[in-house]
Amino acid sequence: MKTLLIKGCHIMTMVEKEKPWIGDILIENGRIVRMAEAIEASASTVTVIEAKNRIAMPGLINAHNHASMSLLRAFSDDLKLMDWLDKKMLPAEARMTREDVYWGTLLGIAEMIASGTTAFADMYVHMDAVAEAVQDSGIRASLTRGLVFLQDDGGRRMTEALDLIDKWSGAADGRITTMLGPHAPYTCPPQPLQEVSALARSRQIPLHIHLAETREEVAKVREKYNQTPTEYLHELGMFHDNHVLLAHAVHLDLEDIGRLRGMRGGVAHNPVSNLKLGCGIAPVTELLSQGVTVGMGTDGAGSATTLDMFAEIKAASWMQKLHYGDPTVLPAEQVLRMATIESAKLLHIDHEVGTLEVGKRADLILIDTNKPHLSPLHDLHSLIAYSATGADVDTTIVNGEILMRNRELTLISWEEIQREAAVRAKRLVEGL
Amino acid sequence: MKTLLIKGCHIMTMVEKEKPWIGDILIENGRIVRMAEAIEASASTVTVIEAKNRIAMPGLINAHNHASMSLLRAFSDDLKLMDWLDKKMLPAEARMTREDVYWGTLLGIAEMIASGTTAFADMYVHMDAVAEAVQDSGIRASLTRGLVFLQDDGGRRMTEALDLIDKWSGAADGRITTMLGPHAPYTCPPQPLQEVSALARSRQIPLHIHLAETREEVAKVREKYNQTPTEYLHELGMFHDNHVLLAHAVHLDLEDIGRLRGMRGGVAHNPVSNLKLGCGIAPVTELLSQGVTVGMGTDGAGSATTLDMFAEIKAASWMQKLHYGDPTVLPAEQVLRMATIESAKLLHIDHEVGTLEVGKRADLILIDTNKPHLSPLHDLHSLIAYSATGADVDTTIVNGEILMRNRELTLISWEEIQREAAVRAKRLVEGL
Repeated sequence: MKTLLIKGCHIMTMVEKEKPWIGDILIENGRIVRMAEAIEASASTVTVIEAKNRIAMPGLINAHNHASMSLLRAFSDDLKLMDWLDKKMLPAEARMTREDVYWGTLLGIAEMIASGTTAFADMYVHMDAVAEAVQDSGIRASLTRGLVFLQDDGGRRMTEALDLIDKWSGAADGRITTMLGPHAPYTCPPQPLQEVSALARSRQIPLHIHLAETREEVAKVREKYNQTPTEYLHELGMFHDNHVLLAHAVHLDLEDIGRLRGMRGGVAHNPVSNLKLGCGIAPVTELLSQGVTVGMGTDGAGSATTLDMFAEIKAASWMQKLHYGDPTVLPAEQVLRMATIESAKLLHIDHEVGTLEVGKRADLILIDTNKPHLSPLHDLHSLIAYSATGADVDTTIVNGEILMRNRELTLISWEEIQREAAVRAKRLVEGL
Repeated sequence: MKTLLIKGCHIMTMVEKEKPWIGDILIENGRIVRMAEAIEASASTVTVIEAKNRIAMPGLINAHNHASMSLLRAFSDDLKLMDWLDKKMLPAEARMTREDVYWGTLLGIAEMIASGTTAFADMYVHMDAVAEAVQDSGIRASLTRGLVFLQDDGGRRMTEALDLIDKWSGAADGRITTMLGPHAPYTCPPQPLQEVSALARSRQIPLHIHLAETREEVAKVREKYNQTPTEYLHELGMFHDNHVLLAHAVHLDLEDIGRLRGMRGGVAHNPVSNLKLGCGIAPVTELLSQGVTVGMGTDGAGSATTLDMFAEIKAASWMQKLHYGDPTVLPAEQVLRMATIESAKLLHIDHEVGTLEVGKRADLILIDTNKPHLSPLHDLHSLIAYSATGADVDTTIVNGEILMRNRELTLISWEEIQREAAVRAKRLVEGL
């Protein structure tokens, strides 16, 4: 029986309205079994982490990612969206082998672990390689094979999607879950979309789809179907009795927001990507006021450049405050909950992770406050939301296993990942 | 003769359109004396820094700060502006002693050095204490006593302002420069503002003033003078033959922007503060298109929470891309220049710092790229602008003196600062 005792930290549970308090956390067999002011180490097999001046909080959950695109970080920024996609991203991605996806995903996972992310939702290709990277690294993930139905591929993509689900659901001690991933309204005609939705419903598989990221997408869908992208999905019945993870959801009108009311799943907000690509400000406040779950993700590093969820936390709050001209909107505690428990709901794993509670899986991080920008200690939620970065995380734990300690990755070799990533990244972009 | 040789780094000079290249930097007597592919260490007194996988770039310059407010970081976020000011900031600041300002400023300076800032412009009270903190810490600063003319103080503030200038201009090996600081259009009636402007002109002292930060300020000034804040300053002749550092400049109309064309000095953009307080998006792109110098600052940590200029760099670019719905606006190299050489222009020290050039003062930082979020190395400007944070800086050098090496502060004691800050911060906010 593996036990781990974290002593003397500020415990920030992220349970709604719970104030941080100082105490110890006992972890056994991958779960939090006790949290109290002082817990004595009872067995010689216990690993003790002295965590004075550390803040323990739930690991951050990145609800929308394409981790492998980390190989294309900072390769094609500051370009028009279509130039970025057609001249840079698509040609580089076309060169990606299964091995590239494995190492690219590990690069992304290394960054996530090093910046306090303990779970992510990923949609990409060569998902077998992504699953292996998740398995090898100790992180938690919900994996989706992206499904584009613009050309007849003889059912190849769908076969891969179902193989992924059959082979990997529940694998790696339950760290891996899966979804079905019709790519987006503008890449999925009505018939296959209805078929995927029905399949998801009958097998109770969650769905992961991009929605209304750009103005161009809205125009395209309107031209084709005379509907908004949200209306299109809604009218096809996708939200009926399905858990759906909607990535982006920037361009929704009031009727669209109404269409999402009462849905299972919700919206993965990607503030940095939306800002950096000039997409716009998602109606996060309105969605929340309608009771729609809103979590948070980074999108791929090809657009967002970094997978640091602390950047997303800041950006999400800032954008709403800017939009309303009101600094009280989306306050620190709420935006931190979006990056933890609300994202967990989107991944359909909120019964297991997303808050620090006895009985839940021990997916948590320790933040070192012994730094100028995290001093003094007035309001901890505020301090973490508005001043911390991923580099302040000194320990990352998933399923009770330490994946990073004192900023050193424990299960995967950073030197090896860096070497592989450098060579592969160079080859992918050569001549582009 | 103190010499310092930095070997094998990526040299990012921030001279316009210069591509980064790999080489060595030789520093003698506080100045860059040579940059070349390979420089041999010639004397036994040379300190050599092996900087493989490091990016050398000019130190960041924070063009608008109230460093001492670091004691009030994360104390009163997510409040309405007037609640924040009247119920929290002003009562806490009223308790600040000269000693508090010294230690608060050192806390801010510790954060700045640790996040790659080598110079800052500061406006506050007890500026003697701020100057001492600058002197003791090795950083560079332009200091200003804030001047509010709403009540008759018998000339006390002005006397302090002039004493600061007389006593500290050029002090600490020239690291300290000074300005005159009429606080803002809404706190300075026409007569004292004209007198300060005339004094600045006759003694050739630069001016530092807040301008058009909030909608409320614009309304207030319009009600009082039937002018925009910018128009008010312009009509009083402030910009005529004066170097003026304008902090914020969020709410300018097209005529206001025209009024700034050809001015000496320019605008210190404070993107994070503007976002977090919901102030709005400053017309940075329009100002640049009219040839107005635009640098960058953090504002005080009381509002911005962190003094990390890398957060400002990202936010500045994101806000313009968002405003125009265009990812090509304010690209990486340009926004990095705003945080370095353009800010240097605002501080009137661009002949000495702000780029890496032979003959200039050696104010520079080394960024460690040996990290997941800074791999692979595609475009270095893009990587630094969109993915780096202050924590990636491993070495900070000002005037050829090493102020941080391997993330350890060398001249000031972090333990002492942290201890003093904790006690003083607690006292300042007690009961508020």
